[in-house]
Amino acid sequence: MDRHGAYSRLEALFRKIGILGDALSVLHWDMSTMMPEGGAASRADQIALLKAMAHELLTGPAVPDLLEAAAAEKLDDWQRANLREMRRDWVHAAALPADLVEAVAQAEAACEMAWRQARPNADYALVLPRLRELLTLVRRQAEAKAAALGVSLYDALLDQYEPDGRSAEIDGVFADLEAFLPGFLAQVLEAQGRRPAPVMPEGPFPAECQRVVGLDFMAALGFDFAHGRLDTSFHPFCGGIPDDVRITTRYDEADFTSAQMGVLHETGHALYDFGLPGAPWRGQPVGRARGMVLHESQSLLMEMQACRSREFTGWAAPRLAKAFGGSGPAWAADNLYRLGIRVEPGFIRVDADEVTYPAHVIIRTRLERALVEGGLDLADLPGAWAEGYRRLLGITPPDDRLGCLQDIHWYGGAWGYFPTYTLGAMAAAQVFQAACRADPGIPAAIGGGDFAPLRAWLRANIHGKGSLLSTRDLLTEATGRPLDATAFKAHLARRYLEEA
Amino acid sequence: MDRHGAYSRLEALFRKIGILGDALSVLHWDMSTMMPEGGAASRADQIALLKAMAHELLTGPAVPDLLEAAAAEKLDDWQRANLREMRRDWVHAAALPADLVEAVAQAEAACEMAWRQARPNADYALVLPRLRELLTLVRRQAEAKAAALGVSLYDALLDQYEPDGRSAEIDGVFADLEAFLPGFLAQVLEAQGRRPAPVMPEGPFPAECQRVVGLDFMAALGFDFAHGRLDTSFHPFCGGIPDDVRITTRYDEADFTSAQMGVLHETGHALYDFGLPGAPWRGQPVGRARGMVLHESQSLLMEMQACRSREFTGWAAPRLAKAFGGSGPAWAADNLYRLGIRVEPGFIRVDADEVTYPAHVIIRTRLERALVEGGLDLADLPGAWAEGYRRLLGITPPDDRLGCLQDIHWYGGAWGYFPTYTLGAMAAAQVFQAACRADPGIPAAIGGGDFAPLRAWLRANIHGKGSLLSTRDLLTEATGRPLDATAFKAHLARRYLEEA
Repeated sequence: MDRHGAYSRLEALFRKIGILGDALSVLHWDMSTMMPEGGAASRADQIALLKAMAHELLTGPAVPDLLEAAAAEKLDDWQRANLREMRRDWVHAAALPADLVEAVAQAEAACEMAWRQARPNADYALVLPRLRELLTLVRRQAEAKAAALGVSLYDALLDQYEPDGRSAEIDGVFADLEAFLPGFLAQVLEAQGRRPAPVMPEGPFPAECQRVVGLDFMAALGFDFAHGRLDTSFHPFCGGIPDDVRITTRYDEADFTSAQMGVLHETGHALYDFGLPGAPWRGQPVGRARGMVLHESQSLLMEMQACRSREFTGWAAPRLAKAFGGSGPAWAADNLYRLGIRVEPGFIRVDADEVTYPAHVIIRTRLERALVEGGLDLADLPGAWAEGYRRLLGITPPDDRLGCLQDIHWYGGAWGYFPTYTLGAMAAAQVFQAACRADPGIPAAIGGGDFAPLRAWLRANIHGKGSLLSTRDLLTEATGRPLDATAFKAHLARRYLEEA
Repeated sequence: MDRHGAYSRLEALFRKIGILGDALSVLHWDMSTMMPEGGAASRADQIALLKAMAHELLTGPAVPDLLEAAAAEKLDDWQRANLREMRRDWVHAAALPADLVEAVAQAEAACEMAWRQARPNADYALVLPRLRELLTLVRRQAEAKAAALGVSLYDALLDQYEPDGRSAEIDGVFADLEAFLPGFLAQVLEAQGRRPAPVMPEGPFPAECQRVVGLDFMAALGFDFAHGRLDTSFHPFCGGIPDDVRITTRYDEADFTSAQMGVLHETGHALYDFGLPGAPWRGQPVGRARGMVLHESQSLLMEMQACRSREFTGWAAPRLAKAFGGSGPAWAADNLYRLGIRVEPGFIRVDADEVTYPAHVIIRTRLERALVEGGLDLADLPGAWAEGYRRLLGITPPDDRLGCLQDIHWYGGAWGYFPTYTLGAMAAAQVFQAACRADPGIPAAIGGGDFAPLRAWLRANIHGKGSLLSTRDLLTEATGRPLDATAFKAHLARRYLEEA
């Protein structure tokens, strides 16, 4: 291979861009976990500068010619896929003039700041002017990208989080779920009501004990502590880079289950990052995770599929009892299992159970699409939000704090992100089903606290592929078909109606 | 003022360079406090790239013309000083070709890695080849900078840490100290031997209690927790940026005094950073601390001058006793005061007392200068080291772990740094003397745990000046004369011989 060819020069350029991205990950992690509030303005400057430098490198004048010349070079499959991903990054970046990038970043920061004040006071009017400015810029961004990609406004935004994700496919899947869920939810609540309610173990549960349990469970799942760590943050997340994965949680001393499930969820994300292709693809676009649908599928596969199972709960229950010094029926595996799968419609997405969660996402997806495409004005958002909850979950939020102010996404500029949560939940079910079909010993191993068989299958079929294939092709190779709701619905029926 | 003039363009450029430096500070702090070992290689890449980008910005082709054009513009005193500091940065950067910068960075990383293995095994031979490579490159660096600055090889290196620092001045001061110390040390040991030995309070001292005491003392000194934090690291340091100052310590559960004094020391550094000029000079070269001599003077002023005093110990003793649940004569203020000023010649610089510390520094300064200038070969370093200790402190290290392998500086590429420690100790004495002369209420206020008067004087006379003046002019304005050993020697005599 010509070491001075166009493709090689692109690899060197994208390596630099990747390293800038790695540095940005550290700055973001620190901002959420360690930074005192007085550091915020300087940190915003650091992040803005590094982002601008990455954008400048990516949109340099030589890049279009290099992309074209590289396409004519002899490349293997991974190189060809890498070139495809480079072009994708370039199209997204080159679509936006630098002043729009800067304006969006500033509007995001200003709107998020206003939102932090507005949310606790349930004061949507306070943030509305800033949100209006931001949405105007987001739409300009969407228009520019839509033209470059040849897709609709909303799909241009979705494509940032889920490459090649398209509303047309999502519409069908969400319509299927929307038709299924209300009737299913009624059945689940009816079945649940016939059983005695599970008992919450009595606390308090000291944060330090919860942390020790979290570390123990992370180790069981296969978290590599030479390449990562667990910390505390207000909004739990998985950050860092594949060599140094940083997950966070938060501790409620009255209820250990939220941190426990949160840690298992973020560990699922972390295992994906750990399992991504190593050298020479680490740091190259093809070495990255495929997109947010698959990323969320890996966290939900661990949290929902593997760790809310009877098998895992059987293994975990005595460990939890021992860690918290508990005993009696509240700590029995069956009770903890029932606690983990309680279903109850509520206002807050991040507190939602597996059955009602898709409704939260469908509402947001419909609303953000209408807002971006112009079918809904921001002034009418609170009303439209309440109407969505009434129709899909039969409840009406008493104020905007429990309504349209609850999530940071829109106020921080993340438009087009929401559908990936529920697509991820569906993919998790489909992937876990395929893994257990390929290795029927997986559930029993999980029952013994042994995740090695599951991890091996995931690494071979999902993690280690990076961005070699599209989400559609990757899922087809791994599970036998593109994403649909079949496995997810079957999983729900089995777990919540106890159908075989 | 012409907003598009050369000076304004330089301000914008240096603001960018400053922000890159801020991001680097966060990456360094994280590396020392949080990063799992598996993140090291990626972190080295991030740091190298950001440094290279800053070097590229600083040595851009337009910079020399802008510096020249700006000198002809109408500027106020601060702008003129800012331009002087910009030129200083540029001279240092432009002296080095980019490939030498890269080679030095790589040699530093390789040598430091070898040193981490060599030190615990007292195996100087293991690190010698790497150290030889590094020193060769450091000398090339020194030659290039010496030519650009018109100074000697050693002074070119010293100038990186102490702008305008020159061996000729240091030689006189160190000769003065060297003549004074051996006789003085004998007197101190003799006087000390006549008194009963102080009693070490009985431990253990739980790390968490030590941390709480540290935070309490930091608050008393004036540390602003909205703009900084305290963490743990193997090598304590003060990092971060003026808006977000990160100090670290380490805890010995058998001896609380090392962390206590370490926290007071680093808080002195932090107060300097907090007190640096705000907007519009924050992030500009003139807004930075003046140099390592003054920086060390501020940490030693707090640790040695203010906090090992009878006044501070009187305030601290009951708080320490309460925090550790101690009582009896070991916790009496006079006993703790005596503990804090014990003198005992030893092999390790960082454990040294105030009286013997200069000997450690003088030995290193002489050796590094001879190594850089060619008068000493690296193969002969262990012998020359032992000879220095024998002559100045009357002790001979049993191995190189307690000898020339103890400090990271040379192995990490920091040549020319050592003299700033003792110059800083002298400056601390001179500055504290001037502060107490200007406001005689300072010692009594410290005795009540009130550092506001001292802090106010320091902010007005040292911290808030940034790099407006040279170290020499700043000290002359603040204390009435340039740096000399008079105040330091008087302080030692008063404290250790109890002379008035």
